[in-house]
Amino acid sequence: MVSDAGAMESLLMKTAEEQQTSFFQDSLWHNNQESTQNKKLAFGGFVLVHAGAGYHSESKAKEYKHVCKRACQQAVDQLKAGALAVEAVAAALVELEDSPFTNAGMGSNLNLSGEIECDASIMDGKSLHYGAVGAISGIKNPITVANRLLSEAQKGKLSAGRIPPCFLVGRGAHDWAVSHGVPPCPSEKMATKFSLSAYKRNKRKMEVAEKMDTGHNQTKKRRQSSGNENGPGCLDTVGAIVVDMQGNVAAAVSSGGLAMKHPGRVGQAAHYGCGCWAENACNMNPYSTAVSTSGCGEHLIRTMLARECSSAMQSEDAHQALLEAMQNKFISSPFLASEDRVLGGVIVLRCCRCVEPQPSPNIQGTLVEFLWSHTTESMCVGYMSAQDSKAKTHISRLPPGTVPGQSLAIEGGVCRLTSTRD
Amino acid sequence: MVSDAGAMESLLMKTAEEQQTSFFQDSLWHNNQESTQNKKLAFGGFVLVHAGAGYHSESKAKEYKHVCKRACQQAVDQLKAGALAVEAVAAALVELEDSPFTNAGMGSNLNLSGEIECDASIMDGKSLHYGAVGAISGIKNPITVANRLLSEAQKGKLSAGRIPPCFLVGRGAHDWAVSHGVPPCPSEKMATKFSLSAYKRNKRKMEVAEKMDTGHNQTKKRRQSSGNENGPGCLDTVGAIVVDMQGNVAAAVSSGGLAMKHPGRVGQAAHYGCGCWAENACNMNPYSTAVSTSGCGEHLIRTMLARECSSAMQSEDAHQALLEAMQNKFISSPFLASEDRVLGGVIVLRCCRCVEPQPSPNIQGTLVEFLWSHTTESMCVGYMSAQDSKAKTHISRLPPGTVPGQSLAIEGGVCRLTSTRD
Repeated sequence: MVSDAGAMESLLMKTAEEQQTSFFQDSLWHNNQESTQNKKLAFGGFVLVHAGAGYHSESKAKEYKHVCKRACQQAVDQLKAGALAVEAVAAALVELEDSPFTNAGMGSNLNLSGEIECDASIMDGKSLHYGAVGAISGIKNPITVANRLLSEAQKGKLSAGRIPPCFLVGRGAHDWAVSHGVPPCPSEKMATKFSLSAYKRNKRKMEVAEKMDTGHNQTKKRRQSSGNENGPGCLDTVGAIVVDMQGNVAAAVSSGGLAMKHPGRVGQAAHYGCGCWAENACNMNPYSTAVSTSGCGEHLIRTMLARECSSAMQSEDAHQALLEAMQNKFISSPFLASEDRVLGGVIVLRCCRCVEPQPSPNIQGTLVEFLWSHTTESMCVGYMSAQDSKAKTHISRLPPGTVPGQSLAIEGGVCRLTSTRD
Repeated sequence: MVSDAGAMESLLMKTAEEQQTSFFQDSLWHNNQESTQNKKLAFGGFVLVHAGAGYHSESKAKEYKHVCKRACQQAVDQLKAGALAVEAVAAALVELEDSPFTNAGMGSNLNLSGEIECDASIMDGKSLHYGAVGAISGIKNPITVANRLLSEAQKGKLSAGRIPPCFLVGRGAHDWAVSHGVPPCPSEKMATKFSLSAYKRNKRKMEVAEKMDTGHNQTKKRRQSSGNENGPGCLDTVGAIVVDMQGNVAAAVSSGGLAMKHPGRVGQAAHYGCGCWAENACNMNPYSTAVSTSGCGEHLIRTMLARECSSAMQSEDAHQALLEAMQNKFISSPFLASEDRVLGGVIVLRCCRCVEPQPSPNIQGTLVEFLWSHTTESMCVGYMSAQDSKAKTHISRLPPGTVPGQSLAIEGGVCRLTSTRD
């Protein structure tokens, strides 16, 4: 590990030189820094959510923003009631899953067989426990099952000393959920008009593509076709990251997966280190960090993007660190050398205790830096502190003319949380 | 990432001081270093396999060693025939899975419902591609499916630009396998007398434990019980790591999972970064590295042990680096702070091109350093270079009186591969 650092340094320097060619917008960063500083909170925290990195049409922008707003509000309501970060992040996810416009829970993409199979995971930065479900059907809120796995694991061993599971898939995950009080939901109730029509459209597209191959070298043709598989609605996984007033962080993610995926396919939303990550500050790490990802699952898995971004956030300059992580660990990752377009997005926050402008032994402050970055055409985010009356939402877009999967957008802000000690 | 290095250095120094309290045996290390150096190979490579970290009774030691021998031979046969590392490692795994004595493929542990559900994964250090299956039933060799997923993904996109999956679970994984020519195998044929009697014994143990709770505070009691869940046969996952003559590395792992696990539970053997890892040398990393793990899945997942050990192997001293990784990233990991016993084992190799004693432009050498380490009572390993007439096998044990899950054993050797250039 230690000998890595030298190599990493030179890589970072190289990237710094390359920056001029990549797009990033930093006006919002500075604006937020000014507008949210010095806010005083009696009890609360901060939440940042995403309704996916992919493509968000102007016509549906309002809906995406609305659901982000509601998700932020749910998390803040929890935080104000004294909930820990992990409970608040789960509450935000339930709201995001319940929207028929997002590719998670209700309204998820259908797989090749026309069924809905969901992935979700949650991580608690305080206990470092983790819970995940993969390819689960017939459960309205997969995040609830992941959260329940996390909390059950925290209770310790099962009867006869058995170790509780942190990751369950398929039918077994469904049955475990039901036996732990999570109500089942008929799969047909989870499909929406939109997801059903997208399925029919995609199925036709596949049939046409496969017919075109007939009479040719099928394997070769099949591998060369590269239609716009990441069109509207295909990648809009959801996620959230939260810091509570005690400085605990938590992260969560939920997804219906890629449209027309093979049954049983599990994406990044259920992969440890890939879909979300949360780690409270400790001896080794000065910052608490939380990350949630979205985009093409296989790209996010193979680069382990959530954990990579979390590690990067221990550097001095958060904005620069995320920019470099997205460039070096994602777009230019050796793990994706054979991919022509690397599609994904992240939301990130880090925080640390900070000195108050007017120092007092009874007042403690937490400085929260939050960012989002994506290589997809757009990414919809929302954020809110417990001090705010309503959430801010934003659809971040790559500038016209830049190529999705090769360029990136990065924006963010700073928020100072202040609380009076008991 | 860069600011991490300082913290890491101090951690490593601290551990160096602590070493006296941990057990490690280095006689074998030096013996092997002498006995295997300077061997000349026309065409070949090296393989290291494990039949699990757990408990290997003296009475079955012969069987465990035999299967390790056969697995090594399978890999070496492939290497001699000119196969790449990834093909050789898959061949070793098939042999390990086919043994009724190992907890993988044939003879796997039964889950709570009395069914066999297997996890397996494989990683190719050359392409950095990865394939995995989780909770798959009715397939004799889960590794074959993981390997097929890997090779299919390397071919590029599917029809209509769909991205091929790298991880499939449950029924979907089974159906994908069969549709790709892998023959199904009735589950009842995969159970053995041993696995069935272990299931009955475990079931009785659970019933007794749960009866004892009746009338008490059930949840509390349930959580306090800590019987010897890791008894005979419970943790003996299998795995292998290979380097071929071109210096490509590959790693694989396969497991029937913990006995009496919940249906749908997926362990480390199907988790990216946790069950196995392989990375060829590149600009950033001077060494090619390969790792395969075994033990308690949840512990290996939460510490991401395969990838951690792989990263550690870039340090100067391989033996010291693995010792520190096992101490700091596993036994003392903050991710497992609440666990009283941290159970697992790893096999590790790293290699690099080396200068020949008598330099010649036509001769190139590869120096392979290989190690195993475990915190479980024992770990069974086998290793062989293509030069050797037969594999060496060994059951490594913690010394009497040390506590499994708190102490570790570490051993290894060095092998020099030499080939004449075309």
